[in-house]
Amino acid sequence: MSNNNLPEPDTPAASLRGATRLEHDLIGNLEIPDAAYYGIQTYRAIQNFRLSDIVLSDYPALVKALAVVKHAAADANHALGGLEPKRHEAIVHACERIAAGEFIDQFPVDMIQGGAGTSTNMNMNEVVANVGLEYLGHAKGEYAYLHPNNDVNMSQSTNDAYPTAIRLGLLMDQQTLVDSLDRLIQALAAKSAEMAGVVKMGRTQLQDAVPMTLGQEFQAFASTLSDDARYLREDAPKLLHEVNLGGTAIGTGINAHPDYPRVAVDRLAAISGHPMRLAPDLIAATSDMGSFVMLSSAFKRLAVRLSKICNDLRLLASGPRTGIQEINLPARQPGSSIMPGKVNPVIPEAVNQVAFTVMGNDLAINMASEAGQLQLNVMEPLVVFKLFESSRLLARAIDMLRELCIEGITANEAHCRHLVEHSIGLVTALNPLIGYENSTRIAAQALATGRGVVELIREEKLLDDATLEKVLSPESMLRPGVAAA
Amino acid sequence: MSNNNLPEPDTPAASLRGATRLEHDLIGNLEIPDAAYYGIQTYRAIQNFRLSDIVLSDYPALVKALAVVKHAAADANHALGGLEPKRHEAIVHACERIAAGEFIDQFPVDMIQGGAGTSTNMNMNEVVANVGLEYLGHAKGEYAYLHPNNDVNMSQSTNDAYPTAIRLGLLMDQQTLVDSLDRLIQALAAKSAEMAGVVKMGRTQLQDAVPMTLGQEFQAFASTLSDDARYLREDAPKLLHEVNLGGTAIGTGINAHPDYPRVAVDRLAAISGHPMRLAPDLIAATSDMGSFVMLSSAFKRLAVRLSKICNDLRLLASGPRTGIQEINLPARQPGSSIMPGKVNPVIPEAVNQVAFTVMGNDLAINMASEAGQLQLNVMEPLVVFKLFESSRLLARAIDMLRELCIEGITANEAHCRHLVEHSIGLVTALNPLIGYENSTRIAAQALATGRGVVELIREEKLLDDATLEKVLSPESMLRPGVAAA
Amino acid sequence: MSNNNLPEPDTPAASLRGATRLEHDLIGNLEIPDAAYYGIQTYRAIQNFRLSDIVLSDYPALVKALAVVKHAAADANHALGGLEPKRHEAIVHACERIAAGEFIDQFPVDMIQGGAGTSTNMNMNEVVANVGLEYLGHAKGEYAYLHPNNDVNMSQSTNDAYPTAIRLGLLMDQQTLVDSLDRLIQALAAKSAEMAGVVKMGRTQLQDAVPMTLGQEFQAFASTLSDDARYLREDAPKLLHEVNLGGTAIGTGINAHPDYPRVAVDRLAAISGHPMRLAPDLIAATSDMGSFVMLSSAFKRLAVRLSKICNDLRLLASGPRTGIQEINLPARQPGSSIMPGKVNPVIPEAVNQVAFTVMGNDLAINMASEAGQLQLNVMEPLVVFKLFESSRLLARAIDMLRELCIEGITANEAHCRHLVEHSIGLVTALNPLIGYENSTRIAAQALATGRGVVELIREEKLLDDATLEKVLSPESMLRPGVAAA
Amino acid sequence: MSNNNLPEPDTPAASLRGATRLEHDLIGNLEIPDAAYYGIQTYRAIQNFRLSDIVLSDYPALVKALAVVKHAAADANHALGGLEPKRHEAIVHACERIAAGEFIDQFPVDMIQGGAGTSTNMNMNEVVANVGLEYLGHAKGEYAYLHPNNDVNMSQSTNDAYPTAIRLGLLMDQQTLVDSLDRLIQALAAKSAEMAGVVKMGRTQLQDAVPMTLGQEFQAFASTLSDDARYLREDAPKLLHEVNLGGTAIGTGINAHPDYPRVAVDRLAAISGHPMRLAPDLIAATSDMGSFVMLSSAFKRLAVRLSKICNDLRLLASGPRTGIQEINLPARQPGSSIMPGKVNPVIPEAVNQVAFTVMGNDLAINMASEAGQLQLNVMEPLVVFKLFESSRLLARAIDMLRELCIEGITANEAHCRHLVEHSIGLVTALNPLIGYENSTRIAAQALATGRGVVELIREEKLLDDATLEKVLSPESMLRPGVAAA
Repeated sequence: MSNNNLPEPDTPAASLRGATRLEHDLIGNLEIPDAAYYGIQTYRAIQNFRLSDIVLSDYPALVKALAVVKHAAADANHALGGLEPKRHEAIVHACERIAAGEFIDQFPVDMIQGGAGTSTNMNMNEVVANVGLEYLGHAKGEYAYLHPNNDVNMSQSTNDAYPTAIRLGLLMDQQTLVDSLDRLIQALAAKSAEMAGVVKMGRTQLQDAVPMTLGQEFQAFASTLSDDARYLREDAPKLLHEVNLGGTAIGTGINAHPDYPRVAVDRLAAISGHPMRLAPDLIAATSDMGSFVMLSSAFKRLAVRLSKICNDLRLLASGPRTGIQEINLPARQPGSSIMPGKVNPVIPEAVNQVAFTVMGNDLAINMASEAGQLQLNVMEPLVVFKLFESSRLLARAIDMLRELCIEGITANEAHCRHLVEHSIGLVTALNPLIGYENSTRIAAQALATGRGVVELIREEKLLDDATLEKVLSPESMLRPGVAAA
Repeated sequence: MSNNNLPEPDTPAASLRGATRLEHDLIGNLEIPDAAYYGIQTYRAIQNFRLSDIVLSDYPALVKALAVVKHAAADANHALGGLEPKRHEAIVHACERIAAGEFIDQFPVDMIQGGAGTSTNMNMNEVVANVGLEYLGHAKGEYAYLHPNNDVNMSQSTNDAYPTAIRLGLLMDQQTLVDSLDRLIQALAAKSAEMAGVVKMGRTQLQDAVPMTLGQEFQAFASTLSDDARYLREDAPKLLHEVNLGGTAIGTGINAHPDYPRVAVDRLAAISGHPMRLAPDLIAATSDMGSFVMLSSAFKRLAVRLSKICNDLRLLASGPRTGIQEINLPARQPGSSIMPGKVNPVIPEAVNQVAFTVMGNDLAINMASEAGQLQLNVMEPLVVFKLFESSRLLARAIDMLRELCIEGITANEAHCRHLVEHSIGLVTALNPLIGYENSTRIAAQALATGRGVVELIREEKLLDDATLEKVLSPESMLRPGVAAA
Repeated sequence: MSNNNLPEPDTPAASLRGATRLEHDLIGNLEIPDAAYYGIQTYRAIQNFRLSDIVLSDYPALVKALAVVKHAAADANHALGGLEPKRHEAIVHACERIAAGEFIDQFPVDMIQGGAGTSTNMNMNEVVANVGLEYLGHAKGEYAYLHPNNDVNMSQSTNDAYPTAIRLGLLMDQQTLVDSLDRLIQALAAKSAEMAGVVKMGRTQLQDAVPMTLGQEFQAFASTLSDDARYLREDAPKLLHEVNLGGTAIGTGINAHPDYPRVAVDRLAAISGHPMRLAPDLIAATSDMGSFVMLSSAFKRLAVRLSKICNDLRLLASGPRTGIQEINLPARQPGSSIMPGKVNPVIPEAVNQVAFTVMGNDLAINMASEAGQLQLNVMEPLVVFKLFESSRLLARAIDMLRELCIEGITANEAHCRHLVEHSIGLVTALNPLIGYENSTRIAAQALATGRGVVELIREEKLLDDATLEKVLSPESMLRPGVAAA
Repeated sequence: MSNNNLPEPDTPAASLRGATRLEHDLIGNLEIPDAAYYGIQTYRAIQNFRLSDIVLSDYPALVKALAVVKHAAADANHALGGLEPKRHEAIVHACERIAAGEFIDQFPVDMIQGGAGTSTNMNMNEVVANVGLEYLGHAKGEYAYLHPNNDVNMSQSTNDAYPTAIRLGLLMDQQTLVDSLDRLIQALAAKSAEMAGVVKMGRTQLQDAVPMTLGQEFQAFASTLSDDARYLREDAPKLLHEVNLGGTAIGTGINAHPDYPRVAVDRLAAISGHPMRLAPDLIAATSDMGSFVMLSSAFKRLAVRLSKICNDLRLLASGPRTGIQEINLPARQPGSSIMPGKVNPVIPEAVNQVAFTVMGNDLAINMASEAGQLQLNVMEPLVVFKLFESSRLLARAIDMLRELCIEGITANEAHCRHLVEHSIGLVTALNPLIGYENSTRIAAQALATGRGVVELIREEKLLDDATLEKVLSPESMLRPGVAAA
């Protein structure tokens, strides 16, 4: 293949230097490297799709989940008399090893692939067959003894096994993100507690508003993210529990035993430990991407909130002299070669970029979901790729943000207090005591002269120091209440 | 204002021909048309924001909801002793009339506005004050007797009253969309029942797959949309019940009575009939757009599904001769001046365009939500504009789709059956009976000769007619089961 | 039509109270209000599409452009002998009046419509026919004397006339946006000149960097927007000059005289004054949305840049005490009811929201463009709607930004200089004179003590005052050069 | 670092098993693997940013371009007397080797990184320094003899060197995409020529329209893509030629020789062979992402068009029996395990998914571009990542589409002709001969009876066979002209 810029498919090429076996499918025959557990259909997919450089084995949860689906299907086929004990045993053996993390490197198909996941499904069918064949004492490729389609894929279509595996894989993967998020929320809450006494100005529309504490500000970060954590923990899994296993080609269940769907899904729940259940309308469930659209939306919302938080952190840490400078982010790397001593908020900046990536992924998922036609959505591989990518990027960004930024934040308490004391917004709290007339006059005078509201009030003896201290104490300013002398 | 293309702000200009009254604010004085119930701050907003030509009165639910918030706040202020009975009575009178649909035309501020909703809030404060003043026997503008800020806005900030009203307004508006969607689902289900006996080929990846019925296909449309209806009915409201009323400027509740938040929200729930409750973290709730992001995502998912369904309808109705032509959409208008007799699927095409608009709105909402800074999100007016727009467009598109398309669809039953009988995919169902070898040979022969699989099997007497009829009957092909002679 | 929330189509309903005439098309007969210049097909479209409340007459440039296309087509048909002189004269009369702005209210079809623009095209055909009929002394509806299809639409299909009109309409509309943008650029440049002497700190990553002037900062705003103005003035029109007029139904030109395309496009150029020319591949040109995708991208880029500029304005004006406060935006309206004296940057905030809307529109346009199928893109009405909307919103937002914000900005010169003098970044400029060792030590000392770099250098007598003044003068700090004593 | 899911940074960890050297920066000291040519700042960046698993060395064009920028800067510094000959020689030696493709694996920093590219710039500074040190006979890390900042980065800031390198890198990379696209256009044109004689029905709105040829249809694909190829070849480079090299930190050129910008950019043009030139406003050019937004828009437009073409290919190849089946795509892999003989359009499906990815990337780029603040855009690393990713994905998808699909497409000529002859749309061409009355009657009769228009005309002897053949010949139907007997 000349005259193009497709990357050479490394793995097979390299392996071909060794011994090979001949396999065939409806397109023809091909030499397959003997070391490979995958077979001819995987091999064709490797050659057809050389696009993203990201392959199935980069997302082990998806691979493991598909092995569990094969395991459950084999159990159901065995229970219903369709699969003989020996073959069942071999399939289960292979699936358990893959689900435990073995053979992950045997899944070299690009995450962006045509065929609605057929290549992924066949990759699994072939690896299970060949691992099983070795277990049975046969050589790889002796499919008469254990066949990728007839045995491993029995009663299944890509169109039900693959979407089922995606859901299970996302469920398995989800916990990582939830755990990361929980740790970040805890770190924010801890930081909030640490800075509970730091009084500062709140700002609306980037204009001075009324006082609050840094503790309240960080607690608000924790609160909004807690909403995402709750969604991901409680609601997101519900999106994923309903599967179409047993629907076969288009959801009608053709060529599957009438009891197969129920038995297979029960086994899936039992093996995986997740409460998987059969979708009520298997035809709808076969082509519908609605759950994935919603899960991606949840990732997107988390991205929106993280980005807002990181924007705030960068604003609050702006300076060191000509910005807001209320907090200090831990220095992680020198910020400039030309400007000595400059340290930049590199960690939140990277989180912003992850957020934009997740939002772009959400768009790709929406478009792919809209592009489904009739009884199938052929864009499903992109949907699953971008979902797993978003989930992983978010988890990593969240860990990075916590470890390398949040946990090391310190407050510039004196500066925060200085800003409050010199703010004009302070007058809002004094309004009930000195009256609207005085408030307005003092505010205008402060703005014109550059002096502080409190200073001016003291000068005019409008309030005594004890009252001022009381009214401007955190106790009175930072929670509901109308100031009274 | 010369040398620009801003539209002339019609209403005030026109009204100025009549009598005026003088109002003032911190910027200065302005003549306000005496007929106007709004005041100087609304007037400034009309002049400042001449952008979208869409104004508050185009979305009455938002206006009414804000009136209900003012009512609840006035009740709480009265109960806690802050608002004298006479003024309370006048405010309640005005709010009830606005909530009942009066004075809607007195809300001429552009939906796209700076100020984080302050202009919307002040528009309401001014209209309530002036309606209340007339009730009290005073002239409009005599704010000493009922003041937009001091009385109507008592204990409130735009930053808590406005987000609260948005939530309530969306809740009030939501039912319209849910009802439309329910009617569409029923129409699809009815059409499914009507076409339950029409056997047709299912298609995956636009390639012939295995048989199903038109009834199953339309039921699948109903099923996916039912998921959206369920979300909008059960989950979406939960996004909107928590409000930050009482948080005042930034969520700390400064200048509000400590009991005010609880009392005001209780009154809000009682007056509105919606189970509104106080958000647990008022600072977080003041700036967070997470609920709106999720609601927009739900609208987007509905748009994605509607678009997929309309794409399918257009595919299934393609023809009349050179397409799939399984169904006929009702003719709604002549399709072409140059091609006699052409009728096009104009209704689903319009739904697709609404779907793309909703997806574009979702992006605008995401970006606006991400752009919040520190204690407020100043882009909230765009968020609310696009949410209401998406909701209305979807409801209208759904009604249009049902009335002008779905309900009038007819099936080309004979053609559907013809396609099944001549399909090669049929061989899948016969596989268990005639064996894989025969299946493959028959399939290849059919493809090469253009003849039908059944015809060839009959010719070769591979199966007798009784068996063929039984295996290819809907009973055996359209549900789980392995064919047996 | 009960049980739905579609808006009542006002115009026809109202008109029906008066006299009517009977019209018919291939669907059947309908009573049309006699006052209406449009006919039965427009009437059907009004009833079919009640979605956005935005109709053709809201975008007069599109209506006028389509009238010019009809004029050019009639001229070509007349020249090639297909249209008799009397009918030609009547069509030209009608088109000229519409192009001059008459009858705009006779175009009540929703901008979101199925049928790929057929309703828009037929709306024009009908209005031209009826205006022409009156000119010929006939009653509206007497189409035997001048027929919407046979005469007005002669040699045309919606599929060539409509895309041609869109291009011409956008060209006509474009100047408004370009003029607004030019005026904004001039205002920014004028403001830059006015503030050329205001030295301030530059900031990278929201951290203090090195000095610059406010003049340089505002000039940079002008420079980036000049790139957009250049694109819109020079490149964008080139996207729109190539038209498919004469391609008829699918670009093959069926049923049009072989000379018609050339003659019609020549007339179009002559009448419109725009250098319109025939696309080289009429089949490609009929379905391709590429030019519109690119034009929308240009609007989007302008939106991105405007949003960035407005974000900067809001940052620079943050304060008045606890922000950056380098500039003051003119006060346009009171900012808060609860916080006395608060004034917010409402104008840039509104521009941000317009920018997000334009970015959302761009997505809708992309999706609509991708959804074209085979020989046509049926989503073209959405593409044109969102293009015109984006163009108008941008022009208005730009005028608003200039008039109500940029022109009134003032600098806080003393504060800007104070920030520079107290910045640590200043040490960068002194680096070549006092050496890296001293620079680092001084920087650290300044940060630790809160004192100024210059103050410390003076104290240590590292540089004399004359040298300091020279090195820190605008002349040496604000342009390329290595400081030397 | 425990309790997180950040990937272990492989390279350094592995290398640490060997010898190390001690390096320090303003944050502190670190052991660096002696084998590494990068230094401490790269090492910190590896540890800080473990996000995407995609690193600088995955995009060699960017690395090489930055080496060329360093080369040009060193030449300018040498010419202007700032860099001594020995050091200059060493830097040039290193840069030439890197630009030739050596040491690419020494750039392990994540493409998603905070710091606005500082880590990328420092990675290059360190590798150049250490390669240069070895050339000078020194050990890696002996920076006194050749310093990453003082020497390699002389007169530069990340903020000018990095954006300059991005532009050059994109220019270098661009040719790959343009060449791929040109080859695809040629393949489409060749296929068009091959199928020039295949008459088929054109379709608008998925409804039968009028005849055309498959040749015309494929030529239209080629035509639309030619517009993209022209843009990428002629216009896109112009977006990239203007650079801000010499602007240093914020565009003011502080700490650079006044002649440096001009000399450096001249050298850059000479070394690279690209006509690079200095941007007119260096302050604007430092933070503005406008060129990248436009380039991404061009990629997006190409994606939109490719996706439309692939949608069409899948529609035209739908079948084999129950679809449109006008063309056959080459079989690339078995399509289904459950449905024997099924072959799917996997290649166009994969292209669609690449298109959606590119459109998602465009959104991420837009958001990153909008997020720039004041004198810099810190999101630039994401912009460059997604631009390079889109460019590569598009080139690979285009090669795949050409090689594995377009070149092997065959036409079902007889079926195409059959559809034309049985279509009702044919009547459009006969209209001028048999009159509108007859046309309409024949059309209705055809639709009702399922018979062909030509057959009915023959039956009624409305036209003789010779006339029919002439009118329905490609010569008369497929190009402009009004049929005449």
